This record gives sequence, structure tokens and C-alpha cells, in this order.
Amino acid sequence: MLYSEIITESIRKLADYKSFKVLCHQQHEGTPMPSLATLEEIVHLSRSIIFPGYFGNAAVDRATIKYHIGMEVERLYQLLSEQIMAGLCFSCSEPPPQSHASSIAATFIERLPQLRQMLADDVIATYLGDPASKSYGEVIFCYPALRAISNYRIAHELLVLGVPLIPRIISELAHSETGIDIHPGAVIGNSFTIDHGTGVVIGETTIIGNHVKLYQGVTLGAKSFPLDEKGNPIKGIPRHPVIEDDVIIYSNSTILGRVTVGKGAIIGGNIWIDTDIEPGAKIIQASGKK
Amino acid sequence: MLYSEIITESIRKLADYKSFKVLCHQQHEGTPMPSLATLEEIVHLSRSIIFPGYFGNAAVDRATIKYHIGMEVERLYQLLSEQIMAGLCFSCSEPPPQSHASSIAATFIERLPQLRQMLADDVIATYLGDPASKSYGEVIFCYPALRAISNYRIAHELLVLGVPLIPRIISELAHSETGIDIHPGAVIGNSFTIDHGTGVVIGETTIIGNHVKLYQGVTLGAKSFPLDEKGNPIKGIPRHPVIEDDVIIYSNSTILGRVTVGKGAIIGGNIWIDTDIEPGAKIIQASGKK
Amino acid sequence: MLYSEIITESIRKLADYKSFKVLCHQQHEGTPMPSLATLEEIVHLSRSIIFPGYFGNAAVDRATIKYHIGMEVERLYQLLSEQIMAGLCFSCSEPPPQSHASSIAATFIERLPQLRQMLADDVIATYLGDPASKSYGEVIFCYPALRAISNYRIAHELLVLGVPLIPRIISELAHSETGIDIHPGAVIGNSFTIDHGTGVVIGETTIIGNHVKLYQGVTLGAKSFPLDEKGNPIKGIPRHPVIEDDVIIYSNSTILGRVTVGKGAIIGGNIWIDTDIEPGAKIIQASGKK
Amino acid sequence: MLYSEIITESIRKLADYKSFKVLCHQQHEGTPMPSLATLEEIVHLSRSIIFPGYFGNAAVDRATIKYHIGMEVERLYQLLSEQIMAGLCFSCSEPPPQSHASSIAATFIERLPQLRQMLADDVIATYLGDPASKSYGEVIFCYPALRAISNYRIAHELLVLGVPLIPRIISELAHSETGIDIHPGAVIGNSFTIDHGTGVVIGETTIIGNHVKLYQGVTLGAKSFPLDEKGNPIKGIPRHPVIEDDVIIYSNSTILGRVTVGKGAIIGGNIWIDTDIEPGAKIIQASGKK
Amino acid sequence: MLYSEIITESIRKLADYKSFKVLCHQQHEGTPMPSLATLEEIVHLSRSIIFPGYFGNAAVDRATIKYHIGMEVERLYQLLSEQIMAGLCFSCSEPPPQSHASSIAATFIERLPQLRQMLADDVIATYLGDPASKSYGEVIFCYPALRAISNYRIAHELLVLGVPLIPRIISELAHSETGIDIHPGAVIGNSFTIDHGTGVVIGETTIIGNHVKLYQGVTLGAKSFPLDEKGNPIKGIPRHPVIEDDVIIYSNSTILGRVTVGKGAIIGGNIWIDTDIEPGAKIIQASGKK
Amino acid sequence: MLYSEIITESIRKLADYKSFKVLCHQQHEGTPMPSLATLEEIVHLSRSIIFPGYFGNAAVDRATIKYHIGMEVERLYQLLSEQIMAGLCFSCSEPPPQSHASSIAATFIERLPQLRQMLADDVIATYLGDPASKSYGEVIFCYPALRAISNYRIAHELLVLGVPLIPRIISELAHSETGIDIHPGAVIGNSFTIDHGTGVVIGETTIIGNHVKLYQGVTLGAKSFPLDEKGNPIKGIPRHPVIEDDVIIYSNSTILGRVTVGKGAIIGGNIWIDTDIEPGAKIIQASGKK
Repeated sequence: MLYSEIITESIRKLADYKSFKVLCHQQHEGTPMPSLATLEEIVHLSRSIIFPGYFGNAAVDRATIKYHIGMEVERLYQLLSEQIMAGLCFSCSEPPPQSHASSIAATFIERLPQLRQMLADDVIATYLGDPASKSYGEVIFCYPALRAISNYRIAHELLVLGVPLIPRIISELAHSETGIDIHPGAVIGNSFTIDHGTGVVIGETTIIGNHVKLYQGVTLGAKSFPLDEKGNPIKGIPRHPVIEDDVIIYSNSTILGRVTVGKGAIIGGNIWIDTDIEPGAKIIQASGKK
Repeated sequence: MLYSEIITESIRKLADYKSFKVLCHQQHEGTPMPSLATLEEIVHLSRSIIFPGYFGNAAVDRATIKYHIGMEVERLYQLLSEQIMAGLCFSCSEPPPQSHASSIAATFIERLPQLRQMLADDVIATYLGDPASKSYGEVIFCYPALRAISNYRIAHELLVLGVPLIPRIISELAHSETGIDIHPGAVIGNSFTIDHGTGVVIGETTIIGNHVKLYQGVTLGAKSFPLDEKGNPIKGIPRHPVIEDDVIIYSNSTILGRVTVGKGAIIGGNIWIDTDIEPGAKIIQASGKK
Repeated sequence: MLYSEIITESIRKLADYKSFKVLCHQQHEGTPMPSLATLEEIVHLSRSIIFPGYFGNAAVDRATIKYHIGMEVERLYQLLSEQIMAGLCFSCSEPPPQSHASSIAATFIERLPQLRQMLADDVIATYLGDPASKSYGEVIFCYPALRAISNYRIAHELLVLGVPLIPRIISELAHSETGIDIHPGAVIGNSFTIDHGTGVVIGETTIIGNHVKLYQGVTLGAKSFPLDEKGNPIKGIPRHPVIEDDVIIYSNSTILGRVTVGKGAIIGGNIWIDTDIEPGAKIIQASGKK
Repeated sequence: MLYSEIITESIRKLADYKSFKVLCHQQHEGTPMPSLATLEEIVHLSRSIIFPGYFGNAAVDRATIKYHIGMEVERLYQLLSEQIMAGLCFSCSEPPPQSHASSIAATFIERLPQLRQMLADDVIATYLGDPASKSYGEVIFCYPALRAISNYRIAHELLVLGVPLIPRIISELAHSETGIDIHPGAVIGNSFTIDHGTGVVIGETTIIGNHVKLYQGVTLGAKSFPLDEKGNPIKGIPRHPVIEDDVIIYSNSTILGRVTVGKGAIIGGNIWIDTDIEPGAKIIQASGKK
Repeated sequence: MLYSEIITESIRKLADYKSFKVLCHQQHEGTPMPSLATLEEIVHLSRSIIFPGYFGNAAVDRATIKYHIGMEVERLYQLLSEQIMAGLCFSCSEPPPQSHASSIAATFIERLPQLRQMLADDVIATYLGDPASKSYGEVIFCYPALRAISNYRIAHELLVLGVPLIPRIISELAHSETGIDIHPGAVIGNSFTIDHGTGVVIGETTIIGNHVKLYQGVTLGAKSFPLDEKGNPIKGIPRHPVIEDDVIIYSNSTILGRVTVGKGAIIGGNIWIDTDIEPGAKIIQASGKK
Repeated sequence: MLYSEIITESIRKLADYKSFKVLCHQQHEGTPMPSLATLEEIVHLSRSIIFPGYFGNAAVDRATIKYHIGMEVERLYQLLSEQIMAGLCFSCSEPPPQSHASSIAATFIERLPQLRQMLADDVIATYLGDPASKSYGEVIFCYPALRAISNYRIAHELLVLGVPLIPRIISELAHSETGIDIHPGAVIGNSFTIDHGTGVVIGETTIIGNHVKLYQGVTLGAKSFPLDEKGNPIKGIPRHPVIEDDVIIYSNSTILGRVTVGKGAIIGGNIWIDTDIEPGAKIIQASGKK
């Protein structure tokens, strides 16, 4: 029958390795590729461990918390070892020993208590800074920024531990969930907050100090980048802004290039900046013309 | 073995109540916290009841609709009673009787037919106002704004009935899904439409009249807010705009503070406004310079 | 008991067909409406077939790929036939024969190998154009734009084959996932890339050439549209921009109306344009005032 | 690699239609075969409808029962129409119209209230006859015989309505669950009970009156059957016992052939019978020798 | 349409409370009935706790076992409290306080370590007594008798604690799984083994000593029971055998009535006994006649 | 609180390794134990591969069968390699290389086409021998014996390939499903059939010829077994019957010990045999006494 022939022929073409071009990634024999579904579970587990009761099982209490956290940490260690291995194999020509991946996973888990402290500081800063927030709990439950920052802090930790690819996927999971795009390579201080958040972009080489607050739609981006002899961008050069302590940047403003926004500066909304800003400066936009 | 010791020690630290700081919320004995998964099901059920066939079971028809809606309303009542109770316990020092939560849930369900009428008006307004929409059905299936407005109307109703926390979580579920962030405290009239919608922010004390249309990236935000003696923002003060009937605001414009945009005014795109706008005014931006 | 009476009465009202107004869509007897859950599976299957290993089963390899793709294509054909039929029935007064829907599904599948080539070109262009991307694989795994463009290319193909409604739902699934809103009616050339992407809007009658690059928040929208005698917008008139080859448009800029941005032009960020732009022009915005 | 070649070659052989011999059943184009999983759901739905609260949702009550039963009957009608069609297609050379299958399904559903009455009588008889049973509810929850008899009564009804194959699968589902094997072709009167039940076999042409009670391990079987000219058994000839009203047969006894056990007879345990038994007779076995 | 009318009318009849007769059980307002699915989970959890690694998670090890058992015991306590409450409400006219059910659940859990010891003795006895068994592990994994005895010991414990109905359902779950029917009211000593087991029946008032071994098809049943003035059996009278220590009963033998099989007696296969048997006696059957 | 203390203390005791006694099996570090759930999936996959359409996906057809079987065989290979490894590790002091387990799995798969032929012969023999069976398809769908024989032939093959424990678990899965208990060590010829089947037991060292037919409740068992110096049974000695070609054994008969039932003999029902039977003999039981 005709349709069935069309389909059989299409399957033949689609299963032909030559048709993959750049889409075909040759993993080492028997090593699966990173799995989006597993990485989602890793994010979910990490959140459950850091914020018990808020994410994961809503009925956890003092008597049972140690069993819950025990199970979750065990599973996190397992999945993370496996995905770190997948990430290492994806990017190397020679697969490392599994023990290397397991060692990174264990080190990551060792840092979880500290990650929780940093995220608690982010929660406090958010609560104090927003008149609409009624409790710490509301911040944890409702503020997308907290999820994006959690994923960023997890992903950044893994990046620092030398894991390729996986951190980027983790931060994109939060990007999809919240509309906030923080590259895991950025360096971000304590008590960081983002309000509303949709459309925020924080680029790979951005450096952000302590007590910084951003609003929705803020871009900390690259202005232009040097090309190599083939006309392609040279990778890895510092090209995003440095935002010093106590800066506030209002909604939809764009700061481009390796410029510095000085300590305590306030950048108003809908503003385009590509030069250094003095500490303490206040930059505002003219209102629309009538 | 070493890794297993690291993990065991990390579990001990992570399960230690002292490590939770502000993350630890002390619910009343035996009362679970609000559950994101259950609240997602509540949103899904409400949409299925209001728009049968579009959400939920695609094969519902005249003969079977009463059984479907009966089952869904029953389950909605049950889940809502439970989550309202969780919300009340989260925020009070003394847990209310369960009958109080159930009574609110029943009242909410009683208002569902009216909510359906309001949302039908929103659908009609969207269809009429967008040359790209081919049918009412396309609006219901495809327009993210309709989902955001549905969640807003549900959440607002619960807020009016005195439910804490839960409304905010419900509106954030739509924020994550659509990029549209409408605070449940806002007051929004009939026949409200948002086109595309990503990045729209509507703050807690915003008031919007009838037949208003917003485009993507519009912020109705707070400009600044009075601090208390400790330097923290005072909560609950009216600080967002009032948008009167028949206003249109084009993409990426920002209106800040307790200003009024008068009836029938048109605000162009990429505009920053922090003063009152006359009824009928047209505000536009200059084009980019070449 | 009182609550149970309230609920029974509410069910009665909610199941009453008169209460549906425009929400009630009368499908042909026995034809289910389009199903969001099934369309999500269709998108997932298409991605698995086009990018094996990245989406779907992470452990697929050369030995097993033909079975995986065979199963997936078969299931795609089945689900697509069913949903195309649902889409055709939704919009016509007379249901077409099922063979018509199946024929469209088979033709779509026949074009999948070509779709894979186009998307491979999009991947290459993205990799070459972004200094932050480390490999083709990272682009496929992490760049939301690739998902939005995949859904667009799938949806556009179905639209060209005459399928109503379904393409629009498919592109909205990507909108929800990525914050990038591309109407399936737009015509987009090869090697198309979007960086970060949140807030991008590409309208129904937009035409985009080859090697075009957009950044987050860019709107290619309609400026105004003629109304019919009843004051409603006339549907289907070309009203969105034409973007010629090799154009770059930076973040949060807005281009409105049936204007042409000439070959090789560069539009800076946060710019508002509603007139034609010369080929090769560079349009930039002034920095914020201090 | 070697293993992968072995597996590829095995797949080739296993997918070769010539290798199927009698295992290959040629269904009509596009008609799926009966599905064990769907038939299990059909049994589960039927039990939920007949015994609400005991099977299916444990929380059903007077207020909600009509929605539950409505949903379940609708789904039962759908699945049954589909499986009856599959059964009809399995056994005929020419597929009947779908409406024929649907008509049988509707007739079956019409008889459900009567089936419930018959099963209620079986429950009463079981309760009254067993000193170990504490309530009607215990009989419904705990007595495997009730499940086997339920499946039999359902399967017999479908057989009478002319459905091939499906009734036999339904009675085997109970056989697997309970160890009680009742052929759907048997004719069984009211108030039928089986105690314990494991190992009971009731053959295709058995006839059982009212108020009959069997114990575990009882066989009502065929003794021998005439062979046709090829030496194969002739199918469809009456060859199993007739058990008249009020008979009791104790554990592990075997009654073979078209013999009649007269009204009110009592057959002791571990007895082998292949001749008629007088009404009112008591047949017992000698005790074991020491 | 006709079918849909038939179905609507059938639903009406099936939802009519008058049609339920004895099938209708009136639970106390708001108390769900016992749930077969939950009781299956309770059995599964109990087995996982008692035999970690064999049932439940196969990867449990020394490092993680405390978290697994902690989680499982917590969940068991919860589900058991709920089902014990359902069982108490099913059988009483006045619902007891929930704390009564929780107290029984806690007491049951307190006895789990002792239950594990008893079952370990059953495992040892089975291993030593069967030349086909290769290891203790094989007994736990493969011997259906161990599952039936586990469920019996669990159910008996609950019965002793005063829980109605639930124990009987638990023992029937094993009956369905293994073909072994042990009434929870029976009293069974240590080191009890059953080989193969299908068809074994052990009645409500049976008493079995230590080190007893049964083979498949053995019935320990009631012979006859006194009727009350209405001709119905009087419930609760001792009517099943007493089997003393060290007895072996071979396959398919039947022992009926309140008779005693003395210490160390051996009963051959296919034997029918309704009188006392001396300690140490050997009862065998004549072979079949040729 | 009291209950929570009881539970915490019970968890402590239950997680204490000393409490496990014989229940504690010390697997090699990091090797999970065999998994009942995975072995169930292995049985399900094997049946789907051998009898496509009957088990697994009911909609498989000529066009798609190669993809289905490809996927299933791949997954079978994977799961089987893993479970064979678990079985080998369970029983050895030194874990073998994984390649050993994979090699056995590949060999097993290589023999699947031949297994299918043997099972097809069993189906034909069943169909021809039972007047109640209407088609080959009915035998495959409805006869529990076919499932028990399938599991036996799979398990026997694995046993021959040197896999410990796993075969026994696989045959017990069928025992639970069908009440037919066939030890994987038995040797069974072609065209083997069992009617009804509940209660059949075929012991470890049984040898059965071609064209043998058994009825329900037949035991082929061991009579007695020599004890070692400690009084425990010596394992592995031939102790079950030899049943030659063309024998029929009717329901509930028991044949014990290493006796031979000669070619073509017919054994009636409810008979106890522990001596050799001549070829061609007919053994029958006297009827019950009146």
C-alpha cells in the first residue's frame, strides 16, 4: 500500500547515518548521551533537598526528614555520577574512568549545605526587597527568580568542578521554566535577587557582586566579539559587564560589553548602556513623548 | 568507603534542622504544606471544567459531559479544600477548622459559572481584536494570554475569598507557562486581552478597566516605594498604575507608579511612562536613529 | 448537606450547554477535538526522529537506531493522521475522508529528511555565530531557539500542506517552552538563528531571508491593520516586516508593519522601527542619559 | 561487534513472517487483535459498576456515584465496542460493520442491572452458607469465587450475544486470578457459591441449577469425546455433567461426562464419579487406611 | 441516538441506590471503604521491610538501608492507619477515634522485628527440608509458600490486634497470588513450610504446631457445622483440625473437622481423614488399580 | 510524641544488620540483586517477541513488525544481561566479568527462533487435543498452560546455559499466574499440553517425552529422598518420574518417585502411583461408593 511504502522509505532515509551531518554525535561505545529527563530529575531532587517541603514531598516533617533526605541524596549521587560521566564522554576523545565522575558527584554533594546557605540569603534579600512578598515561604514557592538562581548556583558549582555541557543544560531548564537565562559561567555574589524576571539574560563572562537586584527584561550581554581569521567569533574572551555590589537595574535595560557598573549605581528602565557607569550614579530614561 | 562517608556526612548536615534557617517553615503538626503538583492539577481541572473539550478529555460530548464535569468538580472541591487548608495553615499561628476551608472551596465552585462567562468575554475580545486569529477555538487552544488570564481570574477569586499564598502560586504557574506575570491582587475588568504576552508584568495594586488590550513585554509596575524605619519597603500600599477602559498599550512599554492612563489612551511601543496620561492621548516613540 | 447541594447545583449549571456561549465548539459527531497532550507527543516524536539521542532515548546507537526510528515514525504517522483529522474537522462544516488526513501525514513524513537538513543548517549557523557555544551538541541540547525553530519548521510544513489550527498549537507549544513566538505562517530561510530568545515575536506574514540572526526580545510585528465595516480587523493582509538575507537585529528591538530591512543591515538593541531600512545600514540607539 | 551481529541476525529471523507458522494470525487490514490489557480494564470497570466502592474508587458516595458510574459505563461501552469488534474480526473471514459490535456492547450494558441482581443473590448465598464469613461486604472483598462468578456471568452474557473469543479470555482472567476455571459456555443458575475455589474446573457444556455449592478442587469435566475420521476430537458435543438444584460437592471431587447429579445430592470430598447420581443421594469416601 | 439512550437509561438504573440491595454498604459519612490497591501496597511495603533487597528496591545496601526502611516504615504506618480505620468503620455502627486506628498501626509496626525473626525461621525450615532449594535466597525469591505465610503472619497479627475485615483481605491477596488459602484466624507455630502449595486450604479455627510441613492441595477444613434455628450455619465454632508438632501431610490430602493429628504423624497423599490420628502414625493410600 | 518514638525505634531495629539473620544476602559491592519487576518485564518481552500481536502491542502488523521486534529484542538483551549478571553474582563468591553475562544473553536470544517453533508445536498439540478450543489463536490467548510452558522453556534454556536462580524465579512467575508449577530443571519433549492446569506440579528431575498430555492437579513428585549425615535431604539426586511419549494423565493424579510411566500409558484421575507403569497400560480409579 502506498502510504506504508512512503513511510518505509522515509524510515530508511532517516535511519541512514549519512543523513545526520552535524547532528550525529559519536559517543564512546556504550556510553549514553546526557539525558534531559534525568537532568530534570536531578534539578528536582536538588530543590527537594535544599528546600524540603516546598519542592518534593509536601508532608515531610522533623520525624521523617532524615529518611527523605537520605533517599534523595543517594539517588542524586547516582544520577549525577551517571550524567557527569555522560557529560565528560560527550566532550572528550578518551572516556575518563567512572570513578572520576563519581568523585565529582560526591564533591558536589559535599557542597550542598553551603549552597543551601547561599540560597537562604537570596531568599532573605528577595523578601526584604519586595513589598509584594508576604513571607519567606512565598518567595520560595512563588518567585521564579529563586528557581533560576538555584539552577544557576547548582550549574555554576558543577562547572567549577570541571563538568562540561551538563551545567549549561541545567541552566537552560530554568530558562525554559522561568524565562530567566543565566549562563553557568557567570560569577554571582550573595543576596542576589531578580524581580518578575522574564527576559533577563546574564552572559557567560558576567561578574556580579553582592546585594545586586535586577528587574525583568534586563540584559547583561556582549556587545561585539573579535573574530578569528575565518571570520568566526573567538570563544572564551571576557565580553560581558561587571556589576559591582548594591547595584539595582530596572526593567528592560540593556548593558553590553565588558563595562563596569560601579558600586551602588541605579540604572532606570528601558536604558541601553555600553560604557562604564560611576559608582553611585543614577541613570534614567526620558518619558515617552506625547 | 570514602564517597559513601562523604555522602553520609552530607546527609547528616542537610537533615539538621539548624541548617535550614529561613527555609524551615513550621507547619502545624500533621498539616502538609501547599503542594505545587496538586495546585497544577487544580489549574488543569478548572480549565477542563470551564473549557470542556479544549483542556482535559478531548472526546467529551453532549451525552457524556455531565459525568465528566461531575467528576471533575468533585475532585476540584476535594483538592481545593485540602490546598486552601494548607494555605491557611501556612500563614496563621492557629489552624482554622477544616470546615472553613471547605466552605471557601464550595463558594469558589459556586462562582465557576460566572468565571466561565467572564472568560468567554475575554475570548471574544481576543478573537475580534487580532487579525491572525481564525476562530474562537483557536484563541482557546493557542493564546497563552487566555491561560494567564484564566489563572489570574481563578487566583483573584480565591484571594477575594480570603485564601493566602495559594492564589500567588496559581498565578506563578501561569507565569512559568506563558511568561505573563499577573499578580492575583490586581483588579481587571471585562474583555481583557494580551497579545503574544511574553514579559508582561501586572503588579499587585494595578487596576485595569474594561476592554483593555496589552502587547508583549508591557510592564505595569511600581516606581518606588516608601521604606519603613528599618529601611525595608512598607508592604500593601497602592503603587501600580490605574488603566482606564479601552486603553491599548503596545509592546515593551513600561508604566510605573500610581499613575492613571485615561480612558481610550493609546501608548506606543518601547515607551517609559511615570506620569498620568490624558484620556484619549496617543503616546509614541521616535524611531531609531540611522 | 449544604456544600454537597451547592456543588450539585454548580455541576448542573456547568454542564448546561447554554452556559457555554462561544466556548462550545460543535465537532462532528464522534470526532474528538485536537488534543494538546497528543500534539505534545507529536512534537516530542518529531524531535526524537530528527535529533536521535538528543531527544527521546539517550542510549540509541548505530545498531539500534533503525528500530527506534521505525517505531517512532510509525507512531508519528498514526498520531499525526488522527490530529490532522481533528484539525480538519474543527474548521470545516463537512468532515473530510480520513484518507485525506492520512495522506497529509504521509507527505509530512516524506519531508522529514529535508527538515532535518534545514535544522542541521540552523544548528551550524548558531554554533558558528555564538562565542559561548562549545559544540554542535551543546546547541542542540541547550539552545531554546533550536526548539522554537524546530516547531516552527514542523508547523509551517503542516500549514503549507493545508492543515488548519494544528500548526498554530504546535508553535504555541514552543512559545510556552521557550518564550519565542513564531507564527507558522511566517516564511523563514536557511541558517536562521536566535540567541537567548525570550520575548521574540515573529508575526504571521513576516518574511525572513537566509542567514538572519535575532536576539532576545525582538518583535517583528504589525503596526496597524485595516478594519472592516464593523470595526473589526480584516484578517489575512500582509502586515509584518520583510527581513532580507544576512540581517542582524539586537535585543528588544521592535520592527513594525510591512517594512523591509535590507540585506546585511544591522539593527541595534532597544530600537523601534516602522520604516524601510536600507541594505547594509547600521541603526543604533543612544546610550541612556546620566 | 559479535553480540550485536548475533542480535541483528536473530531479529531478522524473528521478524520473518515464514517463521510464525500457526502463531501468525492474519487480522483484517487495520483491525488490531484483542488486547489482554484492555480486557483487564473491561473486567475492572464492570466490577466497579456492579459493586461500587468495593472495586474501583473506594471513596464513592451517594452524592458522587452517578458521575462515577456515568464515566465508567461510557468508557466500558467504548472499550467493549472496540474489543467485540476485535473478537468478531479475529474469527470471521469478513469483518462486520462496527455498528454491529457497538450494538452488542449497548445490549450488554442494558443487561448490567440484571447481572448485578444475580451477583447479589450469589453474595447472599455465600454469606449464608459459610460460618467464616462475617458480612456481605467480606464476601465481596475477599471471596475469590465471587470474582470468578462475576467474570463468568459477564463472559456468558457476551457469548450469548454472539461474541467469539472475548468471553473465553475474560473467564481466563479470573482463572489466573483465582484458580477457578469456569468455561463461559457453561449454564449456571442462581445463588451459586464456591468455597475457597482453587482448582475448580467447570467445563464448556456443564449445566448447573440453582443453589448449588462447590468446594475447592472440584472438576466438572468431560470423560472422553468422540474423535472424527482424522482422530481429532469432535468439537461442540455435550460432554460435561448436569448438576441439579441444591447439590453440594465437597473438595477435590471429580465428576466426569454427561452424567446427572440429581437435585439435593451431596457428594463428599476426593470422590471420582462418572455415572448418574440419584436425587438426594449422599456419596462419601472411605477414610485413609492406617 | 438509540445507543446513547440505552446507555443513559442504564446509567440511571445502575446509579439508583435501590438497585444495590446487599451490595450497598453504608459507610460513615466521609469514611472511604477499604481499598484493595492500598492493601496491596501495604503487603508490598511489609515484604520490602522484612526482606530488604528481595522485594522492593533491588539495589539497597548497607549504606542506604536505613533511609529505605525509614521511608517504607513511615509510609506503612500512614497507609495502615488509614486502612485500619476503614476496616473499623466498615464493621462498627459508631466510628472509633482515628487515634485508635493509629495506635494499632504503631503496635503492629513495633512487632515487625519479631515477625521478621519468625519468617526467617520459616525460610530456614523450607531450605533444609527441600532438596530442590539451593540457597536461603532462592526460598525467599521463589517459594510461593513464603509469600502466603508472610501475608498470613501479617494478617494474623492484625487480627489479634482487633482489626476486622482487613486481615481477611490481606490473606486473600496471597491466595490469589499463590493458590494457598490460609485464614488469618488460624494459629500456626514456628518453622512452618508448604511445598508447591497450590490448592492448600487452612481453615479459620485450625491450630498448627511447630515444624509442620504441608504439600500442595492439602485441605485442613470443616466437616460439617451446626445450624441455627433458621437453618444457617452458626459462626465462630472450632471446626477445623489441630495439627501437632512435626507433622508432615503429603499432597492433596484432606483433613476435616475438629480432629487432632498427633505429634510426628505422617499423612500420605490423596488421603481423606475425619478422625483423630495417633502421634507418630503413618497413613498411606493404596496405589491406583491397574 | 509516642507513636513517632515507637516508629523511630522500630526503624532502628529493622535497619540493624544483625536482625537479618539468613535474610541478609551479601551481594558483591555495587551489584544489585535480581529484580522481580525486571524479570516480569523479561517474561513479557519474550512472549511479545515469540507471539507478536497476542502479547504486547495488539496493533502490530507486517509493515511494523520488524521495528517492534527489533526494539523488544534489544531491550530483552539489555535486561537479560543485567539479570543474568545479578543471578551469577548472587550465587558465586567471585563476580564473573559482565561479558560472560552478556554472552549468555546473546546465546539465549540466538535460540529464540527455535523456542518459537517448539512453542508453536505445543499450540498445535493443544488445539488438536481439546474439543473446547476453537482456533490456534484461542489457545495462545486463553490457555494458561501455554504461558506456563513458555516460561518453562525460557527458564530451562537459561538453566542449560548455566544461569543460576533466575530460571527458578521465571518459572515461579508462571506458577503464580497459572497455578502450574514446572521446575526449570525438568526435561520436557515436544508437543506438550496441559489442560486447565491449576495445581499441576512437575519436579526438578522429571523427564517427559513427546506428545504427553496432563490435566489439572497432576503431581509428578518425589516420594522420599535420602538424608545426609545431618538429617538434611541430599540435593540433586534424580527423584521424580520419567514419563514416556504419548502418555495421558488425568486430573489430580499423583506419580511419585523415580518411576517410569511407559509409552502410551493412560493414567485416570485421582490416582496415586509410586511404581513403574507398563507401556500402553490404562490405570483407572473406582468410582465413589454410594
